[in-house]
Amino acid sequence: MLYFPDSLNHDEADKKALNTHCLDEQEWQALLDQFISCAGEEDLAGLETAIASDPVTYCLRELNNPIRELTELESQFSSVIIPESPVDAGAYAQHLSENILNQVVPVSSPTFVGHMTSALPRHLPALGKIVTALNQNLVKLETSHILTALERQVLGMVHKLVYHCDETFYKQWLHSSDHALATFCSGGTVANLTAMWACRNQLMPADGDFAGLAREGLARGLMHYGYRGLAILVSELGHYSLKKTVDILGLGQDALIKVDTDKDGKICINALLTQLQKLRQRNIKPMAIVGIAGTTETGSIDPLDILADIAEQEQCHFHVDAAWGGASLLSERYRHLFAGIERADTVTIDAHKQMYVPMGAGMVLFRQPTLTSAIAQHANYIVRKGSKDLGRHTLEGSRSAMSLMLHSNFHLLGRQRLAGLIDASIEKAQQFADLIRQQEDFELISEPQLCLLTYRYVPPKVLPALREGSEQVKQQLHELINTLNQNIQAMQWTAGKSFVSHTCLKPAQWARQPTIVLRVVLANPLTTLAILENMLEEQRQLAQQSPLWQTLHNLIN
Amino acid sequence: MLYFPDSLNHDEADKKALNTHCLDEQEWQALLDQFISCAGEEDLAGLETAIASDPVTYCLRELNNPIRELTELESQFSSVIIPESPVDAGAYAQHLSENILNQVVPVSSPTFVGHMTSALPRHLPALGKIVTALNQNLVKLETSHILTALERQVLGMVHKLVYHCDETFYKQWLHSSDHALATFCSGGTVANLTAMWACRNQLMPADGDFAGLAREGLARGLMHYGYRGLAILVSELGHYSLKKTVDILGLGQDALIKVDTDKDGKICINALLTQLQKLRQRNIKPMAIVGIAGTTETGSIDPLDILADIAEQEQCHFHVDAAWGGASLLSERYRHLFAGIERADTVTIDAHKQMYVPMGAGMVLFRQPTLTSAIAQHANYIVRKGSKDLGRHTLEGSRSAMSLMLHSNFHLLGRQRLAGLIDASIEKAQQFADLIRQQEDFELISEPQLCLLTYRYVPPKVLPALREGSEQVKQQLHELINTLNQNIQAMQWTAGKSFVSHTCLKPAQWARQPTIVLRVVLANPLTTLAILENMLEEQRQLAQQSPLWQTLHNLIN
Repeated sequence: MLYFPDSLNHDEADKKALNTHCLDEQEWQALLDQFISCAGEEDLAGLETAIASDPVTYCLRELNNPIRELTELESQFSSVIIPESPVDAGAYAQHLSENILNQVVPVSSPTFVGHMTSALPRHLPALGKIVTALNQNLVKLETSHILTALERQVLGMVHKLVYHCDETFYKQWLHSSDHALATFCSGGTVANLTAMWACRNQLMPADGDFAGLAREGLARGLMHYGYRGLAILVSELGHYSLKKTVDILGLGQDALIKVDTDKDGKICINALLTQLQKLRQRNIKPMAIVGIAGTTETGSIDPLDILADIAEQEQCHFHVDAAWGGASLLSERYRHLFAGIERADTVTIDAHKQMYVPMGAGMVLFRQPTLTSAIAQHANYIVRKGSKDLGRHTLEGSRSAMSLMLHSNFHLLGRQRLAGLIDASIEKAQQFADLIRQQEDFELISEPQLCLLTYRYVPPKVLPALREGSEQVKQQLHELINTLNQNIQAMQWTAGKSFVSHTCLKPAQWARQPTIVLRVVLANPLTTLAILENMLEEQRQLAQQSPLWQTLHNLIN
Repeated sequence: MLYFPDSLNHDEADKKALNTHCLDEQEWQALLDQFISCAGEEDLAGLETAIASDPVTYCLRELNNPIRELTELESQFSSVIIPESPVDAGAYAQHLSENILNQVVPVSSPTFVGHMTSALPRHLPALGKIVTALNQNLVKLETSHILTALERQVLGMVHKLVYHCDETFYKQWLHSSDHALATFCSGGTVANLTAMWACRNQLMPADGDFAGLAREGLARGLMHYGYRGLAILVSELGHYSLKKTVDILGLGQDALIKVDTDKDGKICINALLTQLQKLRQRNIKPMAIVGIAGTTETGSIDPLDILADIAEQEQCHFHVDAAWGGASLLSERYRHLFAGIERADTVTIDAHKQMYVPMGAGMVLFRQPTLTSAIAQHANYIVRKGSKDLGRHTLEGSRSAMSLMLHSNFHLLGRQRLAGLIDASIEKAQQFADLIRQQEDFELISEPQLCLLTYRYVPPKVLPALREGSEQVKQQLHELINTLNQNIQAMQWTAGKSFVSHTCLKPAQWARQPTIVLRVVLANPLTTLAILENMLEEQRQLAQQSPLWQTLHNLIN
């Protein structure tokens, strides 16, 4: 049977029939050509090569130009009219290159250490192009087929990394149609939401004349099971996605119980036990205890084993948010920090963090694959019962083949090199912490547990006054130093050479006063200690340029 | 200030410090090299070019090989051990090419017309590579900066397309920090969920001693406002994501009220009114009426203007799920089909459907940008109050720059050509419907309203018996024909030359008996009528090869 009488062109009859309207024949042909080749594509290819072959250098082209204010940039994005007629790819590439992409944030630069986006291994842009071109949709076999099997394998590898179950287990579950060991999703937020969704539904199954929470809803579930409410407990350093989660799931933001942390940013067990008792008194069922394995702000890891014990005693779900830290399980040297994670009912890990793949690769893992039946769904035309369609157990529907990116890292780097990246990042953080300690005008605020740390600038001579001055002076100084550090961070960003982020912590050593800190994430293997040393020097100079500098010195003299 | 003492290499001291552990110095250097160049990358580049320059042909290489059963393929994906040591990019490219990517589904082939994934314009793979390499994270300015402004513009363009508000409106809202005209997300599922999340929270705001649903949860909200429950109403052809939505939001699946459709697959207004009355009697508040602008199964469009009237009367939220059909607003010829959409409070549109961008570009639009305050959130370290971070109003956190893909289509195709694609797809569906009507052994089941239609194979001579036979014979025949069409679809998939999907409808012309139909989506501009004609011939031949063929003929003779 000849399917392509005229290769990829429409035959004459078709053309005539289709082109009587908004486009004339010539325009229609031009449009079809755009699906096969497009005018000016050499220029676009040039831009693509320039960026992909060395995104760091591309982004640093403009390094010495200060970053322009967004409000200033917005003026070029003010029209809401979709252009009527096309420009060619050459003109577009030039526009992108001269007006847009030259002003993106060089997230992969070794001097930009304020976010969780590292440089990526060289092979990934090519994979990104392949994934885009093949445009598989992992929601169902019909649009992904073999990649469904590949995705299950990749998820199985991560499951094994966390839970190290035996061969029999994976033989039974890895390619099971009715359940899932794990699912991919856009990121940690959806991963946390998926885990808590499954947890909530499982907590209130069908029972007698009650058809289950999934069918009848939360209000009737509470009534049937006799609870006044549900709660999720997490340390005060829990990710903001958990607040969204309790909101979306209908529990309400007040149902997220934030537990105090100790001086290392770990959840206080006593405070947790107190909160659990309070909930009991209020007849509120603790639905889940969430352990954090790598807080976003300081990288601290909760005592997971103890949390697992408590969850067991309370008979409540134990979830670990390892969106950031999960990748460190690859390291034989540091995986002991996560002891107890294998007891979690569900775990969140982002591959786009320290597994070094691009944006959009969250995962949620299920210790017991049967848990996914609490959120399984089906329809007539898709994710049918009994099918192996991955969409049966995902919150999202259509999804791209991000799993192929992680597959490529597992093969092109292998566990050892990935572990090497983790080890190096943690040890670099320790070295940077030492470096900060050696400075008389910088103060380390949180010790690195993973490759994150926080610190702040305190001008020389101010520290003694901050420690020993009158209460009033101390308070004034503290606030001024907060603002000074905010200034430093903002000036550094505007200068465009390097980047740290800032956040507000309540450090034990400063009597839990809200304290603005500079935050660095040292995941980028291209970041050297020399770069970090230069950055401290830059911050020192910026501090002296701050309008506050003089005020501060007047105050202590 | 010299930031790069030794360009991108670690200096000697660093190397020594970092490499005492799992990797030796040579391995560490190899690893760093992998971030800058990687061994065998020419082969990977070769594969990338082969795929991206012509994904259709690449995927059709194996066209004449039948598609292998997934269970057979799974055996090569059975290990759950992450490889210890890496392979080089050449070996990996060869593996991908020989064992994996040669067996993906050729979703962009003009003969694969059973799904919503068309061929993509030629320039997009290059953009995919650029987006991957730049790895911007749109959750916040710090990792996206200028692309935040670009994304807001693109969303503004789509907002204008739907709501055509005036210049003053967009001047006020387009770049407003506190609200959003629309947000990007992974797809229609999250878009629908986001819309209904905002709707639910807005329905029960803070009031007296009640702090609002977002804070106190659904159960207390119902109690405070005195409702027994909430409901969302949609036609029985509503997308399965709405069932997930009511489940996730805590309303329960029973809260999704499925309303009958008429012979054209449009929601029956009388049935809707009856359902609304029933809800009133049960003291259940209709939270939202959902109109579908392009059902997944048949492409039918609900009477949006009438639904808008009813929602207004009921004082309930009006949401339009235009995930599929929304792109057709680009067409001057067909946008009249969507009259009333501009009255919707929220609208879902997937750019990865008929706006011809790759997977992962859902959008939810808000008529009143202030609605986003019902779901706004903030944290210390991200999406701070007053910031322009897009993450303040998205369900998801980290997100890639998919908006750049849509931006590129708006510029490289322009509105006219995009409209040309829509017009051509709809008219091709009309022509294919005519073609089906001309066959004595095919039956058109749903008329195309957009570029979707459904039909089935009914052997010659069987149709009269199906219409006029005894009830028993009619029933038997109906079931056999259902199975026959299921067989045809499966055999066609296995043959690997072409693809239609199947679903189960309850067509009015067959007394609403569950009827298996073949479903085609004609969005791919490379699909010709000649291809479709050949496909009917292929299906005819497959029918005759089905084991049921003889059974059926015995029954009528």
